[in-house]
Amino acid sequence: MIKKLVAEFIGTFWLVLGGCGSAVLAAAFPDVGIGLLGVSFAFGLTVVTMAYAIGHISGCHLNPAVTVGLWSGGRFPANEIAPYIIFQVLGAMFGAFILYIIASGQAGFDLAGGLASNGYGDHSPGGYSMLSGFLTEFIMTFMFLIVILGVTHKLASPSMAGLAIGLALVLIHLISIPVTNTSVNPARSTGPAVIVGDWAMAQLWLFWVAPILGAMAAGVVYKWLSPDD
Amino acid sequence: MIKKLVAEFIGTFWLVLGGCGSAVLAAAFPDVGIGLLGVSFAFGLTVVTMAYAIGHISGCHLNPAVTVGLWSGGRFPANEIAPYIIFQVLGAMFGAFILYIIASGQAGFDLAGGLASNGYGDHSPGGYSMLSGFLTEFIMTFMFLIVILGVTHKLASPSMAGLAIGLALVLIHLISIPVTNTSVNPARSTGPAVIVGDWAMAQLWLFWVAPILGAMAAGVVYKWLSPDD
Amino acid sequence: MIKKLVAEFIGTFWLVLGGCGSAVLAAAFPDVGIGLLGVSFAFGLTVVTMAYAIGHISGCHLNPAVTVGLWSGGRFPANEIAPYIIFQVLGAMFGAFILYIIASGQAGFDLAGGLASNGYGDHSPGGYSMLSGFLTEFIMTFMFLIVILGVTHKLASPSMAGLAIGLALVLIHLISIPVTNTSVNPARSTGPAVIVGDWAMAQLWLFWVAPILGAMAAGVVYKWLSPDD
Amino acid sequence: MIKKLVAEFIGTFWLVLGGCGSAVLAAAFPDVGIGLLGVSFAFGLTVVTMAYAIGHISGCHLNPAVTVGLWSGGRFPANEIAPYIIFQVLGAMFGAFILYIIASGQAGFDLAGGLASNGYGDHSPGGYSMLSGFLTEFIMTFMFLIVILGVTHKLASPSMAGLAIGLALVLIHLISIPVTNTSVNPARSTGPAVIVGDWAMAQLWLFWVAPILGAMAAGVVYKWLSPDD
Repeated sequence: MIKKLVAEFIGTFWLVLGGCGSAVLAAAFPDVGIGLLGVSFAFGLTVVTMAYAIGHISGCHLNPAVTVGLWSGGRFPANEIAPYIIFQVLGAMFGAFILYIIASGQAGFDLAGGLASNGYGDHSPGGYSMLSGFLTEFIMTFMFLIVILGVTHKLASPSMAGLAIGLALVLIHLISIPVTNTSVNPARSTGPAVIVGDWAMAQLWLFWVAPILGAMAAGVVYKWLSPDD
Repeated sequence: MIKKLVAEFIGTFWLVLGGCGSAVLAAAFPDVGIGLLGVSFAFGLTVVTMAYAIGHISGCHLNPAVTVGLWSGGRFPANEIAPYIIFQVLGAMFGAFILYIIASGQAGFDLAGGLASNGYGDHSPGGYSMLSGFLTEFIMTFMFLIVILGVTHKLASPSMAGLAIGLALVLIHLISIPVTNTSVNPARSTGPAVIVGDWAMAQLWLFWVAPILGAMAAGVVYKWLSPDD
Repeated sequence: MIKKLVAEFIGTFWLVLGGCGSAVLAAAFPDVGIGLLGVSFAFGLTVVTMAYAIGHISGCHLNPAVTVGLWSGGRFPANEIAPYIIFQVLGAMFGAFILYIIASGQAGFDLAGGLASNGYGDHSPGGYSMLSGFLTEFIMTFMFLIVILGVTHKLASPSMAGLAIGLALVLIHLISIPVTNTSVNPARSTGPAVIVGDWAMAQLWLFWVAPILGAMAAGVVYKWLSPDD
Repeated sequence: MIKKLVAEFIGTFWLVLGGCGSAVLAAAFPDVGIGLLGVSFAFGLTVVTMAYAIGHISGCHLNPAVTVGLWSGGRFPANEIAPYIIFQVLGAMFGAFILYIIASGQAGFDLAGGLASNGYGDHSPGGYSMLSGFLTEFIMTFMFLIVILGVTHKLASPSMAGLAIGLALVLIHLISIPVTNTSVNPARSTGPAVIVGDWAMAQLWLFWVAPILGAMAAGVVYKWLSPDD
């Protein structure tokens, strides 16, 4: 069990350092920055790489909503939910901390940039309302879990599951970074919020509630939809 | 059968919300927008993710032209064409509706932007003629079906089919967004057109006729081309 | 045999229409154009999609240099080289012709833009010398064939071959579009050159000689390098 | 053994020519340049293509840190470390030399551009401190080796290993090019540094020490983490 939890810690550390790191360090680099397209690939590739590296250890959730959604879909035992989530959040916080250390090594670094925290309303990158944000996070996480439950179904292609799940996360970011900076992952939201504090902490509730509700709904829907699950 | 149809509904919902959503929300985001390259990946990745998630449920057509082309190629029964198309169109309309709700949560949102509807002539993104638009939609759908029929052939690599088909859709968008905003999918065109109305409805006929003719032609050609089909 | 040749015709048609098409239609679209990165993906994805669609029919060469390199590496019979090359060139010419029809449906279209022809010296996109161009085409084709011969070796992963070969072509374009607009494929160069005429025809020799020499060298090297080929 | 070493030479040649080549030739091409996103894909795709092409010959390390990390993780014999590293460095130097020849075929080429050398402090692309650079190189290489050791574990998906490792390198570049121009590979750093000399040679030590320490640490951690390694 401890190996599973350490694997979740390392994987979620990588998701936050890689995803938020690309956003903070490289997205708006002058003239040749990677933009939101590059950030979308970075988030997705953290999952692709970890899925093949630690999938056989912990299942590679890296996300409290995924853990809850897999339980809701009948694929994960209730008694392991809490420890998984705790180590995911700790990994995310450590990833955000290391990113802060690296980013602050540039003259003129300012934490007010937000360290890629998630937000809505005045703190939505494109100024989208709380309703748009909630709906977006609910639906994106719902579909993320539909993909996860589908590609790990025994009739699907097992070797492609990690790639399909990671590419789903690329896609989700391509759609929704302007709305909420894209969470679909309460741990990913908590990491930078703890360091930024202020509005990022005040808005953090939405990025726990909406993704987890979306994930739970997907578990119920997929159980009905699946041929013989 | 109802499970297949719900799967087609969810998948086509995802194709429109993801593909058109990335175009409306993220393509032209200031300085770091994902551009047509990001939109191309978004459309393709909706298919990649759904192919592995629901391919084993409904076959993951998500597109009336694909359904008709598979029938033309001898791979799909005639009596299931109509229900498949109906649920694809309903899913596309629901996707466009949710996108409209999310997008209108931004101050200054204007439906005149077109919600990523397809068009030709004055409504072609690059001002291409109706002839260019018809030819483009015909050939792109023809080649899309050649790929689909080829990669799902029993001599091909089954586990790679979903990836190859999705990447074909990425490619088709990389080529043809400037010409028609890229349809190759009558359901995808119908979703936003119903909400936008006006010119989008008036030009919708082309995005049913050209893709379906192209798909039917591909079915005939591939049946001849294939070693033992 | 005729089915193999038609498959090569369709595939090379797709390579030129897709690769050159993305360059002509979408690369420099105002504000949201796909750039050289998108063009690189387009060329590569034509090969990925065709490899899985027609690989089991013709082997999916789509390129005279590939055909010659596979012969040089002991993987293709000498008596099929000429017909393969003829149908590849015909397909490329038809692809360039269809692209010309589509592109000329835009007001202000001017063939002087070059229709994505290859060139060196004054006609290199970045103004690189003939020596740079020759060296680039030789080495890029050499490495392309090393990849092709390697990933289709019986000890490699057969299902991944098409993806790896297509991604090799993405990579080659990411490096070398500024030098020669990237050929590594005499058929691809011939298609637009025939329509553009003028300098494109005058410089066409280099894009036959350098790729074919590079491919032949790779065949020899890989035969020695491979464990038991 | 000589075939393994030649394979490492060719592969590392390709990594430097392709990765650094895309940066020097195409990243900042006017208007349509590939940017840091394209450079990230180029580096990663050199590894994807070589992994499937020569993985069955030499294991496709292409990187002294990988060779040392695999030894640290109990997967590579100590007596082959030195010859592997020597041929990797020679291949990298040859790749940088060929890149220099090609790049200098453009009027106005200036070696002061740095030929994509790695650096910190004043020579960090974004002006990041030596501490940020060291920490970044250490952690990125640590995670690179965690991925490599994980995806080549016997419980993972063997056919996907090359893709996952290459995509890990894409991701690492998406995060860290602004900090150090991204090394995680002492051979890749040495190639251009030998030609550029000056500051690139003076700062080269960091790009040997940090990656190798990170790789060794990963070997130890993964041995503990893995189910039954």
